[in-house]
Amino acid sequence: MDFMKPETVLDLNNIRQALVRMEDTIVFDLIERSQFFLSPSVYSQSKFQLGDFKGLFLEWLLLQVEQTHSQVRRYEAPDETPFFPQQLKPSILPPLKYPKILANYSDEINVNQEILNFYVQQIVPQVSCNDAEQEENSGSVACCDVECLQALLRRIHFGKFVAEAKYQADPILYKQLIENRDIKGIEESITNSAVESKILERLVVKGESYGTDPTLKYSQNPQSKVDPKLIARLYKDYVIPLTKKVEVDYLLRRLEDE
Amino acid sequence: MDFMKPETVLDLNNIRQALVRMEDTIVFDLIERSQFFLSPSVYSQSKFQLGDFKGLFLEWLLLQVEQTHSQVRRYEAPDETPFFPQQLKPSILPPLKYPKILANYSDEINVNQEILNFYVQQIVPQVSCNDAEQEENSGSVACCDVECLQALLRRIHFGKFVAEAKYQADPILYKQLIENRDIKGIEESITNSAVESKILERLVVKGESYGTDPTLKYSQNPQSKVDPKLIARLYKDYVIPLTKKVEVDYLLRRLEDE
Repeated sequence: MDFMKPETVLDLNNIRQALVRMEDTIVFDLIERSQFFLSPSVYSQSKFQLGDFKGLFLEWLLLQVEQTHSQVRRYEAPDETPFFPQQLKPSILPPLKYPKILANYSDEINVNQEILNFYVQQIVPQVSCNDAEQEENSGSVACCDVECLQALLRRIHFGKFVAEAKYQADPILYKQLIENRDIKGIEESITNSAVESKILERLVVKGESYGTDPTLKYSQNPQSKVDPKLIARLYKDYVIPLTKKVEVDYLLRRLEDE
Repeated sequence: MDFMKPETVLDLNNIRQALVRMEDTIVFDLIERSQFFLSPSVYSQSKFQLGDFKGLFLEWLLLQVEQTHSQVRRYEAPDETPFFPQQLKPSILPPLKYPKILANYSDEINVNQEILNFYVQQIVPQVSCNDAEQEENSGSVACCDVECLQALLRRIHFGKFVAEAKYQADPILYKQLIENRDIKGIEESITNSAVESKILERLVVKGESYGTDPTLKYSQNPQSKVDPKLIARLYKDYVIPLTKKVEVDYLLRRLEDE
């Protein structure tokens, strides 16, 4: 995606290609997470001494990483949505002048908390290789979780580009739907069931292909590191619905930007 | 690897399994890097304002990441080798009591600078998708490079466990080789050409399998995101020789620890 060229970013084919590529990153990150135990202390507010910080140990680490990444300009990019926008640091890189692509309020649309919740409650218990604590890996687990979360955040909030592209393709239809607060109508207009089925099928194949040592595939019949059906199910139950929520939330306010 | 149980860590079969698993991480990370342009400014000392810091922009980011990761105890683990051991921060996690596995001097054995050099000079130009600058991705590129470097550092310095396991399996042989400063003899004793060939073959298959969208494999004959032969060549020319250097350097001092 070249955010310097809005016309390429709002081309639905390019968006779809970017979303397909992000699947690889998410599958890779889940495979990495599957090396570790569940490690409940990572998701505890009180297990470690976090000073004044109120939140999970994972959130504490996320804040540190966001602060570092803000120094290299991560959160200036229109496809990034920080958890801690108030606590970012100034960038050491010179500011970029991105052309306007999304509506001005777009930073206010986020489902970060929902993503954190389903990640911790649904993904972690199903992906980790054992549901016990493994004290010495708390740091590694949290680092790995940060990667997974960042990939999911980016994927799900990419819905904003889908929404903007759809709006621009048919502003008359959307103006009407928005003025009528027709959420069901908006949802229908942004849903493409054929594309969704294809995503789920592709995820199963990617989970198998990326999660299995290919040199063992025929000899020892090894299992994939992460159950490929699980990855598809997580998309079906969380990633796709939350992406739609982002799209609907974004579109409902779209007339503010006219 | 369970560093709390030295007997499992020094079992050569377990070490080999861990090394095979690390190949996946390295291949994943290189695939991620292949999304980006070369971006020479990431490897410049003077392009960005880094304050008092003397080094590449990439090294500056590496320092920030190491400082964060030191706070979650990363560099207490015997398989981690920081670039900036003098500038780490205290951990917020309680200290761990790892049993002794490696010799006391093992932290002094490192080939970090050699790894950084071959990464920047050899891997980056061959893996990146275009040899130009792409200003707005400098931060993303550097973040991705940090992941690649950390995976390579861990892989290559894992040679210390190989060396220790080999030493313990035949201390009489090694004492003699070490006393004679017989570097060639040590190299021969730690080299298993059959295992090395297998690694290279496996990397080609992993590069193809993890780097190609499996749903496109038969329909459109797509190329792998990273040339699989390139990954094998990087192992042959750099990863394996540097691992051996770590093993030899470690073994040459091994009698200090008796």
